[in-house]
Amino acid sequence: MPHVAVVLSGCGFLDGSEIQEAVSVLIHLGRHGAVVTCFAPDTTFDAVNHLTKASADQKRSVLAESARIARGNIRPLAELSAAKFDAIVFPGGFGAAKNLSTFALAGADCTVLPDVERVVNEFHAARKPVGMCCIAPVIGARVLGSKAGGKGVTITLGQPGGASKAVEAMGATHVAKQVTQSLADEANGVFTTPAYMDDDAKPHEIYDGIGAMIAQLMGHVSSRR
Amino acid sequence: MPHVAVVLSGCGFLDGSEIQEAVSVLIHLGRHGAVVTCFAPDTTFDAVNHLTKASADQKRSVLAESARIARGNIRPLAELSAAKFDAIVFPGGFGAAKNLSTFALAGADCTVLPDVERVVNEFHAARKPVGMCCIAPVIGARVLGSKAGGKGVTITLGQPGGASKAVEAMGATHVAKQVTQSLADEANGVFTTPAYMDDDAKPHEIYDGIGAMIAQLMGHVSSRR
Repeated sequence: MPHVAVVLSGCGFLDGSEIQEAVSVLIHLGRHGAVVTCFAPDTTFDAVNHLTKASADQKRSVLAESARIARGNIRPLAELSAAKFDAIVFPGGFGAAKNLSTFALAGADCTVLPDVERVVNEFHAARKPVGMCCIAPVIGARVLGSKAGGKGVTITLGQPGGASKAVEAMGATHVAKQVTQSLADEANGVFTTPAYMDDDAKPHEIYDGIGAMIAQLMGHVSSRR
Repeated sequence: MPHVAVVLSGCGFLDGSEIQEAVSVLIHLGRHGAVVTCFAPDTTFDAVNHLTKASADQKRSVLAESARIARGNIRPLAELSAAKFDAIVFPGGFGAAKNLSTFALAGADCTVLPDVERVVNEFHAARKPVGMCCIAPVIGARVLGSKAGGKGVTITLGQPGGASKAVEAMGATHVAKQVTQSLADEANGVFTTPAYMDDDAKPHEIYDGIGAMIAQLMGHVSSRR
């Protein structure tokens, strides 16, 4: 059975992984028969009150909060090696732009957490597919875009806007997609879907878009086995 | 379009709503065209570290943590009136047994939060359906079981065990079901599915069981409109 790593960044769209996206990823991977292990960096983040959308004035653990989504089936990201997995998936949420990278603050000048950069490069070098939802493709742009020395990755962030301009500045190509669609960059093995980049999307729409992305990703895995 | 209330109890299976169950409920309700509003009690709970499974020695807000799953689309449970909705759904997780009731501590002698008892009684009296996942049916047993003055509700908690004995002591009838199945008590308009009462279940299996439950619930709504 294929083994897939899912990288979480907390638990809640304003300061961690977008929960509905993360769960949709887990459901679709399970449906495809994948054995899933979740990972998250063993770092802290500034919690946001999701009722008021204001700061909660509290530091929390990215790993321990991510464990809520994974029901405890989670390991520190430092332990993740591409050698043991067939694919890697990053759900979205501001956690991808705050806890896995500095995109929320720095935009096109962002940096990526060293372990995140390492695992993306490992999977890409091993020609193992990388799936990314919502804002997480900015990580793909940073690590695999031509400005990072890569050949330039093609991704979607939904409709054109500030985020798509930023990834183009990083040397990626942006292609507009709807929430229920997925974009395949087969040459790089990178599969992306807009998810909640569309603020007005419904849960079943982001579920379907992630389903399309996971189907492409798992198809890529099967074609290599 | 039908309006459905979803009652959350936090965000994480050890101290709140089981996240995968809550999201599955939201996806399936959206697919059926329901307009969903989430609710949670404006109370506090003792946070559990989901990595270590030990106490986090921290009080958190049930409402603010539940807002993580609902993306902020949530209201205090005190504001929920059955008059404005066509159905109500309770995802599972220990939050249902700790924050919405005292079942985790008191078993068959449990009490239910006054607002939870009120809304379950309101929907039942108006012949509007009630859906419950995982351990949440203990709330149905407490409020609608024959020992509470009801005629006795029929529910599933998956396979027989301590929890099923407790609901029978409350005057409910327990019927065993598999994780992908749902149980309909059409007379009471109560629909239940085992979800993560089966610890070994996979995310897509609990998604399918909740899908079966939501289909029965929405069928009941349609038959009344």
